[in-house]
Amino acid sequence: MSKGTDSVVVKNARIVTPVTGEGELWRMAEYSPGAMWIDAGCIRWIGVQAELPAEATKATMIDAQNRLVTPGFVDCHTHPVFGRHRAHEFELRIKGATYVEISHAGGGIRFSVRDLRQTSKEELVLKLLPRLDSFIAHGTTTIEAKSGYGLSVEDELKSLEVLQALSRQHPIDIVPTFLGAHEIPDEYRDRREQYIELVIKDMLPRVAEGRLARFIDIFCEDHVFTAAEARRILLAGKDYGLRPKIHADQLTDNGGAEVAAEVQAVSADHLEYTPPEMDGRLQEAGVVPVMLPGADFFLSSSLYGPARRMIASGLPVALATDFNPGTCMCENMQLILTLAALQLKMTPAEALTAATLHAAMAIDMQHRVGSLEAGKQADFVIWHAESLSELPYHFGINHVWQVFKRGERIHETATHPKSGVEDDD
Amino acid sequence: MSKGTDSVVVKNARIVTPVTGEGELWRMAEYSPGAMWIDAGCIRWIGVQAELPAEATKATMIDAQNRLVTPGFVDCHTHPVFGRHRAHEFELRIKGATYVEISHAGGGIRFSVRDLRQTSKEELVLKLLPRLDSFIAHGTTTIEAKSGYGLSVEDELKSLEVLQALSRQHPIDIVPTFLGAHEIPDEYRDRREQYIELVIKDMLPRVAEGRLARFIDIFCEDHVFTAAEARRILLAGKDYGLRPKIHADQLTDNGGAEVAAEVQAVSADHLEYTPPEMDGRLQEAGVVPVMLPGADFFLSSSLYGPARRMIASGLPVALATDFNPGTCMCENMQLILTLAALQLKMTPAEALTAATLHAAMAIDMQHRVGSLEAGKQADFVIWHAESLSELPYHFGINHVWQVFKRGERIHETATHPKSGVEDDD
Repeated sequence: MSKGTDSVVVKNARIVTPVTGEGELWRMAEYSPGAMWIDAGCIRWIGVQAELPAEATKATMIDAQNRLVTPGFVDCHTHPVFGRHRAHEFELRIKGATYVEISHAGGGIRFSVRDLRQTSKEELVLKLLPRLDSFIAHGTTTIEAKSGYGLSVEDELKSLEVLQALSRQHPIDIVPTFLGAHEIPDEYRDRREQYIELVIKDMLPRVAEGRLARFIDIFCEDHVFTAAEARRILLAGKDYGLRPKIHADQLTDNGGAEVAAEVQAVSADHLEYTPPEMDGRLQEAGVVPVMLPGADFFLSSSLYGPARRMIASGLPVALATDFNPGTCMCENMQLILTLAALQLKMTPAEALTAATLHAAMAIDMQHRVGSLEAGKQADFVIWHAESLSELPYHFGINHVWQVFKRGERIHETATHPKSGVEDDD
Repeated sequence: MSKGTDSVVVKNARIVTPVTGEGELWRMAEYSPGAMWIDAGCIRWIGVQAELPAEATKATMIDAQNRLVTPGFVDCHTHPVFGRHRAHEFELRIKGATYVEISHAGGGIRFSVRDLRQTSKEELVLKLLPRLDSFIAHGTTTIEAKSGYGLSVEDELKSLEVLQALSRQHPIDIVPTFLGAHEIPDEYRDRREQYIELVIKDMLPRVAEGRLARFIDIFCEDHVFTAAEARRILLAGKDYGLRPKIHADQLTDNGGAEVAAEVQAVSADHLEYTPPEMDGRLQEAGVVPVMLPGADFFLSSSLYGPARRMIASGLPVALATDFNPGTCMCENMQLILTLAALQLKMTPAEALTAATLHAAMAIDMQHRVGSLEAGKQADFVIWHAESLSELPYHFGINHVWQVFKRGERIHETATHPKSGVEDDD
């Protein structure tokens, strides 16, 4: 194990990373053979190996063995704070029940809410630990994580406190988001206005007081929260210092992207039904569009997000898993790259950028993570691959070899059972 | 390590397996808590734990720790004998080039043919070893494996000899298929009739003489081999004792399924464009339909195979990966179950049966593998899961805990980084 405080140098690497462009949104940097000099957990120098500063040669050497090195993934949209999974609903879905039907029958989010309320904080911590380990093991070094299965003051606070506790004890960076407005809980079903008051007047002050979240999010669909309700709740969150995010236009175009622009949300997520005329509005307002193709895949949708259109509009399109027990039980961002390629028609370079630098922008972390540049945290992955294209191309497996967080090796795949690693080009 | 010749007993298992039905195609058997007594690599007894025969208690115990146990997957359609992967073509595909366009430009199968011809038998063995390890690591204990990237007498024999060598040294069962008629090689492009003669008169006798294959297969599409050519080549193979298989109706309905019925192929694979009126013909002829949703997924097709229709027609629908470097670089059958559920609308039980018992039928191995029944080979997987639905539901990861072949543990996932394993229901 290398230590985060040591000076280490990664050599013999095929480094591929997005970098912040000058006069452009981003560009791809490739150094092969490349080297990276890390000091106190941050990147001090990165470039082609021949130009490595002489003083770096004293540092502990990590040999990348001519393998691909990229930034760790930033998964900017996850819902990991739940109790039991919902595999039992899967067969219903296959037999034709829709998401909305399952919800009306008491399943979906409502099942997870009943379940989370019965689960103690300690049990939740134990449930989450292997999930966080699995994110790391699949190459993700930072996650945004939402509450939203509590839907009561006590249970929303419990969810966020679980994240706070885990972010202290787990190497992964966790950026917490308050999602009290994820669904109307059963006991408020006939008095939704009172639930909105509960979110604004009871939950928000406590979340802010405990510094339990950096963002506020809402599930904006007419059968959950309307655009007007979203505007009101997100603005209330802003008053408490939480930056808005929004689940917008996933199932219908009900004005969610418009709300995102109005409240200057840090991101608008899903966007399957967002009309083209919104692209300029999102750009002016500095909203990062987040595509979640894993959820479209899992819902057997034929409509995926408008990634190509938004890239053409100059928007910094981001990607995330949407990891959650109902619509995307997948923490492997490598498969999300595959879906981004096959369904969103994003090139490997666009998809990597979307899953690292742009994802970091979607959670306002782009100054610390999301690319391998001098001054940034040394969060990176050495892959059992030699070219970037292999990650989306050879799909459904885990290409990770070693994962580093702040220069420290936090995961290594002991024996690597995959095919297709080449010795040459 | 338990030894294949020892007597071992698996206990505390949630066993889920298809079994050959009486008066029906198959049914699902579940034993929970279940036990399985294995002797000399074969299943001597299986059932509910309370009924375990007294003499079995002397056997070495394998504790499944209340986890799901299923048969190992039988992957009845793979193309693993190639040199380098084709990740470099992936970006072209994303940018809009079609499979046929890439082929016309010298890529696709033609790239792999040039590459394989330059690769020695020894190098190929080294390339294949990690691929076979990866099949095992993802829960597959038997594969059908095709030649088809040689397309010359020498290189087709080399491909099959590689499989023969590996089946002696690797624990996975390999069932070899001769696919000399995979494509017309470049040097015969203007004289296809002579290539067909080469397959029939030069390759086939050598393959048969060396007992290098059990099946003969062909890629039947009008731009490759027509239905008439397929009929002729498959019948020639039959004369040499090779049972026919066929790549049929993947891109167009050009009569491939009809040929399958006529020559009484053991399986017809792909079938995306097979018309409904063929279902009865396939059934009468005893042809197993093999769905390959991984290839449809990778080709971003909206048309998947007619699994539900064929199940309704009483056909024993099978599933396979189609692992190959061009259209499905995926050896993880768990993700194929997910695709089968989401796109083919197969239930978890139907998908498991398709990937085990029916897949075994597609390679005439159903008397030895494909289900956990007394007398069969003890090829099984203990999963980091408790219910069958979890395998397709929690997707893009590897749920395998331990893999057994003929009662011997051949793989174990040391640390298991996945989320969602539950302690109770």
